[in-house]
Amino acid sequence: MDTKTIEWRDGKVIILDQTKLPLEESYLEISDYRQLASAIKKLQIRGAPAIGIAGAFGVCLGANEIHTDQYDEFKEQMNRITDELAATRPTAVNLFWALNRMKAVIDSCIKLKPEAIKWKLIEEANCILEEDRETCRLMGEHGAMLLKDGDTVLTHCNAGALATGGIGTALGIIFTAAKRGKKIKVYADETRPLLQGARLTSWELMKAGINVTLICDNMAAWVMQQVWIDCVLVGADRIASNGDAANKIGTYNLAVLAHYHQIPFYVVAPSTTLDLKLKSGIEIPIEQRAGHEITEGFGRRIAPANVSVYNPAFDVTPHQLINKIITEKGVFSAPYHLNWDPSR
Amino acid sequence: MDTKTIEWRDGKVIILDQTKLPLEESYLEISDYRQLASAIKKLQIRGAPAIGIAGAFGVCLGANEIHTDQYDEFKEQMNRITDELAATRPTAVNLFWALNRMKAVIDSCIKLKPEAIKWKLIEEANCILEEDRETCRLMGEHGAMLLKDGDTVLTHCNAGALATGGIGTALGIIFTAAKRGKKIKVYADETRPLLQGARLTSWELMKAGINVTLICDNMAAWVMQQVWIDCVLVGADRIASNGDAANKIGTYNLAVLAHYHQIPFYVVAPSTTLDLKLKSGIEIPIEQRAGHEITEGFGRRIAPANVSVYNPAFDVTPHQLINKIITEKGVFSAPYHLNWDPSR
Repeated sequence: MDTKTIEWRDGKVIILDQTKLPLEESYLEISDYRQLASAIKKLQIRGAPAIGIAGAFGVCLGANEIHTDQYDEFKEQMNRITDELAATRPTAVNLFWALNRMKAVIDSCIKLKPEAIKWKLIEEANCILEEDRETCRLMGEHGAMLLKDGDTVLTHCNAGALATGGIGTALGIIFTAAKRGKKIKVYADETRPLLQGARLTSWELMKAGINVTLICDNMAAWVMQQVWIDCVLVGADRIASNGDAANKIGTYNLAVLAHYHQIPFYVVAPSTTLDLKLKSGIEIPIEQRAGHEITEGFGRRIAPANVSVYNPAFDVTPHQLINKIITEKGVFSAPYHLNWDPSR
Repeated sequence: MDTKTIEWRDGKVIILDQTKLPLEESYLEISDYRQLASAIKKLQIRGAPAIGIAGAFGVCLGANEIHTDQYDEFKEQMNRITDELAATRPTAVNLFWALNRMKAVIDSCIKLKPEAIKWKLIEEANCILEEDRETCRLMGEHGAMLLKDGDTVLTHCNAGALATGGIGTALGIIFTAAKRGKKIKVYADETRPLLQGARLTSWELMKAGINVTLICDNMAAWVMQQVWIDCVLVGADRIASNGDAANKIGTYNLAVLAHYHQIPFYVVAPSTTLDLKLKSGIEIPIEQRAGHEITEGFGRRIAPANVSVYNPAFDVTPHQLINKIITEKGVFSAPYHLNWDPSR
């Protein structure tokens, strides 16, 4: 991808506005952390790893607004700002992980002046971005071994370069396999309500010259029945220690279908998506979003006024339905809680 | 429902234009059978039983265009017209059933003049409409016994008054149960790509004062996991003798999910939807529709230009996943091919 999802340039965060894709490739130049928080809420930037990176850069923007040479005052104000950034979206844990890492920089710089800490924060945020790029590369390497030449993969939502600082999670595996000369065909769920599959995944795959066919989410079962699907590859927003994985709404749906059709179901996510404090997925908070995303998402109302709507942004796939979880550390199988790399 | 889905009035077919709902309640006055064929193709009228009724009235419109007093010439021209009407949509068998019934009228009137046959045809089409109304009522009676006060039902697409000449198939059961004082709550799949659930089902249920919550199709599994769903009720477009049932794309998806969550899955359809010539669902022709219904269905393009799209209008649910099939003749269970009423 020549397109950069997010970067820090001259004191500003530059993000590709994903709500405008695929019709428009336009970039936002953000210099205010509040605008960045709003961009996260509005899904102008989305995808668990990318949200983490955005949160880290948001901390840098916030820091630049603070004009004091007192460490304590700086830290206090930074706490308020990180809290605000943390309140944008509740499910993806990468955001909290990144914000904690930024806070740890502040904690460790108690002897520095705020002006110096600001530089350290930018360094750290860029480091998080760079690490994510490398993490994506490694997930791609590990995962590509699971794909054979000629395989057909089904995917949901967007787990590509647009969701990360690198080549993506689930799509990163497809890109890597393709780079190795394997011919991979992809069916992409459009992913209602916000159509990340239709708008983003098919766009990324077409740009990369990969054979992609767009389907509505409710067609997945029929595709599994009519076409030979070799595996399902999806990303994740938070994974509990037992392997239960929260991801875009509809993922659990797909996992049940894959199970019924005996198709391997793989979750691909950096280890920053693991939340080992949580025993199981039942503890993962699920973001509920506004009903108008469903009823008016295309600029035209598609349902009666005042209809009740249920719009969870995520669901949780139980570990029993997940054949493998691929992180940058390798390929994991159940029982996940025993198999995670203890060094992380 | 005070709204009439379809009726014959003064030599014209009046249909409620379902592509305009729920924003507009507008009626089409059709006096040309070609326009009626186009209305069926464009889904201005849809739903297997309603398509059958529309086809019958289309025959009446076609007959009125023929100006001859020769029976043979009349019959020949009518054959051409019924063939044209039959070519509109391939999956719902009710259309072919209704057209055959109209042809049988012509066959049996060999001693009458075309002018007299035209009246017989209008009588027969109105009779098909009236029978469908009664059939819906009976399905409602049989099916309502399966619902308890307080039940929550999940449904897909629109199997209501808009899909029939009466109170509907799957929704007819809900309306009947509600009329008997049972409090029923409904989750309605929006039903991509053409959103019959969002546009039509939620509209019908709200009009009837029934508690309905709209969801995206990919949320069904999560709803089954989070909420107690007592049963899934769907319609059908063609049912093979072994009980395999073609219905709106996404129905098979739901059936697999219901099976996994041990939720009873019921198909509701008049016996005119049975195609006992077919041994199994594999023989049912599945209509493929244009990709732009998915990529441009809301007046705004939601996917990259030229993306490949797979857009089957129907899928087939195998009889193993169907707990009961409800027709006007009663409630049937597997093995279906042994249990169908032999008198039909």
